[in-house]
Amino acid sequence: MQTKTIPPVKKRGRPRSQRAEQAILKAANELLAESGLAAMTIEEVAARAGVGKASIYRRWSSKASLAFDAFVDQFLAGQPIRDTGSLRGDLLAFVRDWIRTVKRTPSGRALSGLIAAVQSDPELAAAWRERFISRVRKQRRQVVERAIVRGEIPAGSDPDLLLDLLYGALYHRYLHIQSPLTDRFAQGVASMIAAGAAAGAAVPRRPPSAAA
Amino acid sequence: MQTKTIPPVKKRGRPRSQRAEQAILKAANELLAESGLAAMTIEEVAARAGVGKASIYRRWSSKASLAFDAFVDQFLAGQPIRDTGSLRGDLLAFVRDWIRTVKRTPSGRALSGLIAAVQSDPELAAAWRERFISRVRKQRRQVVERAIVRGEIPAGSDPDLLLDLLYGALYHRYLHIQSPLTDRFAQGVASMIAAGAAAGAAVPRRPPSAAA
Repeated sequence: MQTKTIPPVKKRGRPRSQRAEQAILKAANELLAESGLAAMTIEEVAARAGVGKASIYRRWSSKASLAFDAFVDQFLAGQPIRDTGSLRGDLLAFVRDWIRTVKRTPSGRALSGLIAAVQSDPELAAAWRERFISRVRKQRRQVVERAIVRGEIPAGSDPDLLLDLLYGALYHRYLHIQSPLTDRFAQGVASMIAAGAAAGAAVPRRPPSAAA
Repeated sequence: MQTKTIPPVKKRGRPRSQRAEQAILKAANELLAESGLAAMTIEEVAARAGVGKASIYRRWSSKASLAFDAFVDQFLAGQPIRDTGSLRGDLLAFVRDWIRTVKRTPSGRALSGLIAAVQSDPELAAAWRERFISRVRKQRRQVVERAIVRGEIPAGSDPDLLLDLLYGALYHRYLHIQSPLTDRFAQGVASMIAAGAAAGAAVPRRPPSAAA
């Protein structure tokens, strides 16, 4: 295990160092919102945060990893993990929080630009998967795991399948077909995924059959 | 009804005109695959098809509408509407055809570039919705309508909700998180959507409740 390649967050610094980190993340977020990922530079972030460039490179190996860390903090701020007591309720709360974030916050409005940038650059794509997708997925799998513990859906249900359907439907409407993200849509997505999982459809068939 | 704004395809031309149209679409496809949408020009298409620019502008109002018409013909060529006798079977056949097209054909490989281009340009986005999304949706809704006629899913099930979940999951894996498009994934998507719809979860709740 190469556990040393990612320094543990809790040991990272003294109060002064933590303040510097917060200032860097804040500056990065402001610059992302103002001018986008392509135009943002480490020099600008350092100047606005009042730190040296070395302070940034000690913590982040690239502009993209800094930008995505800054983005994900803001993006998730309005999307707490909820415990409503049912899978449909948890998914619906989460879809509604996502829609509100995307429609009404600066980080939500930055999302489509980041995804477009990521799609044309394999290095950005790798950083995006590590810093954004993996982090959000890890957090969101809890919702599925709780539904299994409650006995609402069968053990062996694939959390990533549920989350691919959920995020997929949201991103598809938002980015590709630009249909309105209505509350009726939010309810439909939550209902379909909860009902499919309750019917056992998220448990992979073994052995996989070759035909329908 | 403004039926005259879109001339009916069948009345469009004599054989010679149809040959010209096919040559234009073929040239557009080749140039899309070779150099992408941004670099493709009407001049090049005309030269390669052996027609005048006016022949193109008589049929298509913009480069994007020509490119998307050319693309969709090719993209759908390997994805016929199947009738397997069940919603899960129809969806699975369709997801498998989509995955094969995206992975193994030139038009499939062009898809991600077109979607990236569309996201940064509202005019392209409008043409994409009209020429690609609407056309494919209209064709694919049949699968859902047949399942209603068979009594497999309730009347009132929203075809667009099912298709948003299906396309969303595919595009999300393919474009955003770049996870492998495995057959296990294809089966999971088809099973989840068919089971959710069979449980009545694609029928909108009336009146929409404000809470979960």
